[in-house]
This record gives sequence, C-alpha cells and structure tokens, in this order.
Amino acid sequence: MKAFNSDHIASFDKRYRTNFINSLTGFKSVALIGSKNAEGTENLAIFSQIFHVGANPPLIGILFRPHTVSRHTLENILDTKEFTINHIRKEFLKEAHHTSARWEGSEFDACGLHTEYSENVKAPYVEEASIQIGCSFSEKQTIQANNTELVIAQIMEVRIKEDIIGEDGFIDIEEAGTLTCSGLDSYHATQKIARYAYAKPDKKLEEI
Amino acid sequence: MKAFNSDHIASFDKRYRTNFINSLTGFKSVALIGSKNAEGTENLAIFSQIFHVGANPPLIGILFRPHTVSRHTLENILDTKEFTINHIRKEFLKEAHHTSARWEGSEFDACGLHTEYSENVKAPYVEEASIQIGCSFSEKQTIQANNTELVIAQIMEVRIKEDIIGEDGFIDIEEAGTLTCSGLDSYHATQKIARYAYAKPDKKLEEI
Repeated sequence: MKAFNSDHIASFDKRYRTNFINSLTGFKSVALIGSKNAEGTENLAIFSQIFHVGANPPLIGILFRPHTVSRHTLENILDTKEFTINHIRKEFLKEAHHTSARWEGSEFDACGLHTEYSENVKAPYVEEASIQIGCSFSEKQTIQANNTELVIAQIMEVRIKEDIIGEDGFIDIEEAGTLTCSGLDSYHATQKIARYAYAKPDKKLEEI
Repeated sequence: MKAFNSDHIASFDKRYRTNFINSLTGFKSVALIGSKNAEGTENLAIFSQIFHVGANPPLIGILFRPHTVSRHTLENILDTKEFTINHIRKEFLKEAHHTSARWEGSEFDACGLHTEYSENVKAPYVEEASIQIGCSFSEKQTIQANNTELVIAQIMEVRIKEDIIGEDGFIDIEEAGTLTCSGLDSYHATQKIARYAYAKPDKKLEEI
C-alpha cells in the first residue's frame, strides 16, 4: 500500500488530481437530467452526483458545481422547478456521454435521443430510458467548503416496467440495464452478487 | 411502462416504499466508515450515501438519517472529527453487511474485520480494504425537507496499491474489487464497458 497525504494530493497536477479524487468515492449513479428553460428550450445533461435522500417524502439530491457545463440544468431547475431523471442503458451510452459537450440548443436533437412527455411533468423524459423519474424542486443549499450547490427535489412520478418491481418494492435496476460509473468518464455494467436480509447480531446473515 | 404518481407512492406500504424509492437513484457507492468515540471505542458501519463533492480541496459528502443505527458514526465524527472510508470487496461483503446490526461494542470484533492504523489519522482503517481513505470533518448541514444530516469532510490521506492508479490519476476501482449496491441491500460487482474522452460537439466520441 502506498499512502498519499494532503500535501501529496495538493501537489498533483490538476487533471491528475481530478481523476484521482473523483475515483475515490466508489461507484456512482449515472443518469440523464431532462429540463426546460423558461422559453421552453429542452436540455439534457449527464450527471453522476444524484443520490437518495429519503423515502417518505420521496426525496433525491443532486450536486452541481458552479460554472461548469451543467449550469444550464441548474438554472432550468431553479426557473421552472421541474426536471426528469432518466437511467442510462448500454444501448445509448455514447449518446448519453455526448450530452456533456457544450452544445448550442437541445442536446436531444444533437445527440440523437428522443423526448417523451407525461401529463404530470413539464420537463422532457428520455424515451430510450427504461426508468424515468419526474421531480419537483424542493430546496437548494450551498456547501460552504467549495460553493457546490446541493439541490433537493421531491419525486412526483415514476415510469417503469412493472415486471422489474419485486414483491417487496425493490426495483431490479440491473435487470433494467441501468449502468454505473466511476471517476469522470468510466462506465460499467453490473453483476448481482446477493441481497442480504436486515442484519441482526444473533442471527446468521440470510440471502433474500 | 406503468406510471406511479405522488399519490400512489404515498399509499405504498412503508417497507415497500422504502425499497422502491431507495432503488430509484441508481447504483450507489458502498463503503465501511471507521470511527472512534471520545472514549476510544472503535466503530464500523456500512454506508451507501457517500459521494464526491470536489477535487480541490478534496471533499466528500455523507448523508446521515437521524435516529438510525448509523447515529453512532455521526456522533463519533462530530466528537472526534476524523473517520475513515474503506471500499468493500466481495471477500468480506458478508462481514461488511453484518456491521449494520445493532451491536454492542466494536463491530470490528463482532463481524470479524481487522483494524489498521496510520500515523496521520486517529480513526481505524479496515485492514481487509484495498482502498482506504482518511477524512477530517469540515461542515454539517441539515436538509430542511426531512432533517437528514449532510456531513462534508476533507480527504487527509489515501492508502492504495500503486498499480491500480493510471497515468492520468484515474484509479481502477473495478480492478481493486470495489463493489456497488442498489436499494437497501443488493450488492453487485461491475464489468467495465468503456472510458470516453471529454466530449466535444464537433468530434466523434473517443474511448480512452
């Protein structure tokens, strides 16, 4: 094992440090966020900092870096209060990654992905996605340490194939083809190992 | 596709909703957090809400639910200001999951995992982990929508095998055996698809 301390990390070349630190927090969710600006222009961008915040009320969180390509999405969410989260499958991974370029106009057209609308959400879904989540803005906080913006949103709608939902409510996202990512740019499929029952001190671990 | 709206979700049985909503944000990081209380008692707990916040300074975030088994970890971090993050491999996954039970005393002993200490961090690392991260508390914020606590911490030390670090700083966490999880209790290995270069509008996507 090699140990890197704060001084080593601070002395890294910027790009090297970005790759290194981004890899450390493990595998991440990766999804496309669909939104619209006040004029109605559609936007689509890939994000890897989306996470679970609570089940009741159903809340998700997204971290936004200030002054990056993802700024349009944040502005759209603050302006129009609604957006969608769309899981990414291998079949349209390249198109999904390509949304991160600095396009003028809609990334749907530019990258060859298709919009889909529901009656309940103003923002566009990605037709190709097998798990689609409609969200409504709830609150924004600023991380003092680096001015990152944290958006908390409530889940308004979930569109999904029923056959991937288990009897206990667990959604088999691996069966749905959902990918994961690591670092800035590495995409991975998954292979299920096991589900384990709620752990108790006096009980052997059970698979479910 | 079946659409579930807010009313459907609110009407779900509690356990069903917890599984359902926890699955929606996609694959998550999963790691063991090592800490110590003010009296020096070691603690180890499994977490799936750890995420990247920034590379310079190197920051990570962790979400804590109030009044859950993870409370000890939060109290220890607030009391002693230091903790470790340890990636989980298949070889000790059962032991890692078992830390979530309500143990009295140290989960290291109870679950059969071993402590390892460095000169730079007061909290214990997990000897079995091939990626070990030492962290120092930076700030805490409360999510208004559900009183979830967000802890931001700075990375003080990274202990890792050098041969999994690429020339560009990217750490091959799949090669390291790091797992991912979905929902509350489903664990997965990964299979790399590709790394893609920084996307530009006028350029075909390149693998790196």
